Amino acid sequence: MILTVTPNPALDLTWRVDRLVEGGTHRADAGAARAGGKGLNVARVAHAQGAPVLAVTTAGGRVGAEFADELSASGVPHVLVPVAAETRRSIALVDESAGDTTIVNERGVSPSDAEWGAVLAEVVERLPAAGVLVISGSVPPGTPEALLPMLIAVARDAGVPVVVDTSGPALLRAADAGATVLKPNAAELAESTGIDDPVHAARTLLERGAELVLLSLGADGMLAVTDDELVHARLDEPLAGNPTGAGDAGVAACAVLYAEGERDPETVLRRATAWSAAAVLMPLAGDISPRWTALAQHLRVTRPDPALFRKDPS
Amino acid sequence: MILTVTPNPALDLTWRVDRLVEGGTHRADAGAARAGGKGLNVARVAHAQGAPVLAVTTAGGRVGAEFADELSASGVPHVLVPVAAETRRSIALVDESAGDTTIVNERGVSPSDAEWGAVLAEVVERLPAAGVLVISGSVPPGTPEALLPMLIAVARDAGVPVVVDTSGPALLRAADAGATVLKPNAAELAESTGIDDPVHAARTLLERGAELVLLSLGADGMLAVTDDELVHARLDEPLAGNPTGAGDAGVAACAVLYAEGERDPETVLRRATAWSAAAVLMPLAGDISPRWTALAQHLRVTRPDPALFRKDPS
Repeated sequence: MILTVTPNPALDLTWRVDRLVEGGTHRADAGAARAGGKGLNVARVAHAQGAPVLAVTTAGGRVGAEFADELSASGVPHVLVPVAAETRRSIALVDESAGDTTIVNERGVSPSDAEWGAVLAEVVERLPAAGVLVISGSVPPGTPEALLPMLIAVARDAGVPVVVDTSGPALLRAADAGATVLKPNAAELAESTGIDDPVHAARTLLERGAELVLLSLGADGMLAVTDDELVHARLDEPLAGNPTGAGDAGVAACAVLYAEGERDPETVLRRATAWSAAAVLMPLAGDISPRWTALAQHLRVTRPDPALFRKDPS
Repeated sequence: MILTVTPNPALDLTWRVDRLVEGGTHRADAGAARAGGKGLNVARVAHAQGAPVLAVTTAGGRVGAEFADELSASGVPHVLVPVAAETRRSIALVDESAGDTTIVNERGVSPSDAEWGAVLAEVVERLPAAGVLVISGSVPPGTPEALLPMLIAVARDAGVPVVVDTSGPALLRAADAGATVLKPNAAELAESTGIDDPVHAARTLLERGAELVLLSLGADGMLAVTDDELVHARLDEPLAGNPTGAGDAGVAACAVLYAEGERDPETVLRRATAWSAAAVLMPLAGDISPRWTALAQHLRVTRPDPALFRKDPS
C-alpha cells in the first residue's frame, strides 16, 4: 500500500477561459473543485492506476468540509485529521488558446503542534501495512522543522522507503533525515542547495543519504541520479496542456514501483517521465491520460555526460 | 428601506499577488471570501453608509453555505431563498504592482421556476416597506425571460421605483417593463441597443419608459441622461485600485437617494460618481472609502454637447 502524507492540502479550483487577458474580465463555466495538494494528487494517480493507496492529510473549516466531500466522492481511500485552521484554496486559470495555466497558491496555515502529533500518530498506525511512504508538497508557514524528519524516521524505522517531494530548506532536511528518494524540480534543487549544476546538486543530496534523486527538467524531461548512474529520459516534443499535476504523477509512478519492490533507476525514470507527460494531457491535476503506455514507448533514454548539464559560468 | 434582488449571486474570492504573470505560479496569503454578486455589493455599500437595506437572493450547496455564513457575519440584513443548484464562484486576482485585477466569473445555474417563484414572493412580501427596489447583476443562463419584467411590475404596482443594473437583452426588457433608472456601462449599452453613440443609445432606453439612465464611462466618469438633461461628472485623475465594485457603489448611491425621495439627476450623478470612485480605492467590492466626501468636492461636473460623445464614423 502507498501511504501519502500531504502537509498542506488545498481545495484546488480550476477554471477554463478562452483567452486570459491580464486585467480583463472573463466568463467561465463552473470551476472544478478538487481535494488537492501534491500528496492527494499522487494518491489519485496511483489509485486510478489500480494501486492500493491511503492518503493522510488535514481538513479544517468550511473549505475543509468541501474538500472532504470531494475526496469522499473521488473514491480515493483517505484519513483526514481534523484541524482548527481553514483548509487553503489553490486556483488555476487554464487559458485554452494560449495553452498555459496561471496559478495562485495560498500559503496555508500551520496546524497546532497537537494536531501535527495526531497526523504523526496516524502515520505510525498505518506504516505496518505500507510498502512506501510519500511526503509531498509544501509545509505551511509555522510548521515545526522537525515534522518531516520525524515522519521520515518513523518510516525508516519500520523498514518503509520514503519518497519526498518538497522544496526549500525542507528538501535538505529530508535528505539528512534519511529520505530514500527525492524529487525536486531543477529550480527547487538549485535554490535549496545553492548549486546551479543539477547533477552536482543532486549528488550533494545523495551524499546526505538519499539513494535516488529524480530531477524534473520540465519540457526537457527527467533525470535519475544515483551514486553510480545518470540517466536522462525525455519526449521528443513537449506536450501542451495543464502541467500542474505533472510532478505528482511522476512521484506516483515512483511510489507504485517502490511499493512493488522495484529499485532500478532507469525503470523508475521511464515510468515517472511517461506518467508526468501523461498528466499534462489531462485537464486536472491528479489524472493521467491512458496514452501513457504509448508515451512510454516514445521516450528517448540516454546516459549522458554530466558535464552537459552544467550551466555556463556567468 | 432599499430592497435589493441579486438573481445570480456568487461567492467572491479575491487574492492579491505581487505581480501576475500569465502562465506563472504565484504564492498568496489566504484569499478573502465574500458573499458577492452585484445586488449584494449594492446592499453592503448602502448598509455601511447607514441606510436601511434588505438583500434578497438565493443560496445553494456547499458554496451557498459558505456564502450564507459570510453574509451573516457581514451584518447586512438579508433573506436567502434556498435553491438546489450550487451557488457560483467568482474570482479576482489583484496584481499589486500593475494595479489591475483579472476576473473570472462563472456563468451560474438558473434556479427552477418554482424557486424563482419563491424569490418573487419574497420580494412582494417586502415591497410595502421599501423605498426603492434594486435589481442588479447578471441572470444565470436558463432564467425565464419574464423574471425581470415581473419583478419590475410588482414594484411599480406598489409605487416603488426600480433601479436596474444588467446587460444584454435583459437591459432592453427592463426598460420596456418600466424600470425607473437604468445603469449600464458604455459597452453594455452599445451591445444591448446596437447604437455606438452613448447619448443616443441612452435616449432610446428613455423612450422605452425609463426616467434616468446613469451611464458609466469607466475612467471618464459618469453621465446622467434624462429627457431634458445631459450631465457629465468625472474626476480629473482616474484612480488606481480594484474596480470590481465601482458600478455597484454607483447604484447604491442612486438607491440611497431615491429611497430618500431625491430625484434630481445632477445630485444623483454626483454621489454615484463619488461613491464609484471611492469603491476603486478599497480592496474588496462592496466597500467604499470614507474619502468619498473629499472626492465629491473634486468632481468636474459639466453639461456637455451630446455630439462630444459620438464616436467617429468608422
